[in-house]
Amino acid sequence: MAKIIKINHIAIAVPDLENSVTFWQDQLGLSVDHIEEVPSQKSKVAFLPTGDSEVEIVCPTTPDSGMAKYIEKRGPGLHHICFEVDNIDEMLAELKAKGVMLIDETAKELPGRKMAFIHPKSANGVLVELYEVTRS
Amino acid sequence: MAKIIKINHIAIAVPDLENSVTFWQDQLGLSVDHIEEVPSQKSKVAFLPTGDSEVEIVCPTTPDSGMAKYIEKRGPGLHHICFEVDNIDEMLAELKAKGVMLIDETAKELPGRKMAFIHPKSANGVLVELYEVTRS
Repeated sequence: MAKIIKINHIAIAVPDLENSVTFWQDQLGLSVDHIEEVPSQKSKVAFLPTGDSEVEIVCPTTPDSGMAKYIEKRGPGLHHICFEVDNIDEMLAELKAKGVMLIDETAKELPGRKMAFIHPKSANGVLVELYEVTRS
Repeated sequence: MAKIIKINHIAIAVPDLENSVTFWQDQLGLSVDHIEEVPSQKSKVAFLPTGDSEVEIVCPTTPDSGMAKYIEKRGPGLHHICFEVDNIDEMLAELKAKGVMLIDETAKELPGRKMAFIHPKSANGVLVELYEVTRS
């Protein structure tokens, strides 16, 4: 049976990356490790490691992305929680067999990682991302 | 300067604890360490450790609590992120000096811990809890 290893990251949706990072870095004292454009997610992301997890401040780069619509509807705030798993393909098959609604029935392969989202309807309103590190 | 050590927990607000825990435990595979009534927060909480953090499934026990109103307005979902800090009194003084809006200007002392909340207006719409472990 596939297992969750840890919280990989918590994503916070914001409309303006530079202004938003001020709170997390200059006021709260976390450090931005790097900022990256993620074209597959139509977003720009600041990564702030803490403990064995990360806070990700995510800003949509196009107004038609899911996150842009989320911010328009609900305002900025907590967007999703991502769990790192030891075997994402096995985990997705097990969740499907248990009747869990998946946004991605198969994992998307990106450099160094595989990822998939569980539908909030199956997860108490929470958007849950699963993530497997594949770089060796 | 006070420092953040790690994500202590992510809290998920739900209207029904037993039914909600089914997803996180039986489907996703996390384990409930214990369930506890927290009268100071008017809630009942299931604690599910993962990595060096916890997922907390929180259910209001009275309809007049902040969390009950939150669920009524926005539905269940991600509620707050809690960071463990090395010195909460110092952290609160520093945040106040930097103009951050605090819900609790001084930390509440509970057995084994001190805690305070930062106002979402200062934190990109995110309710942020600070937490210092005081048990030795």
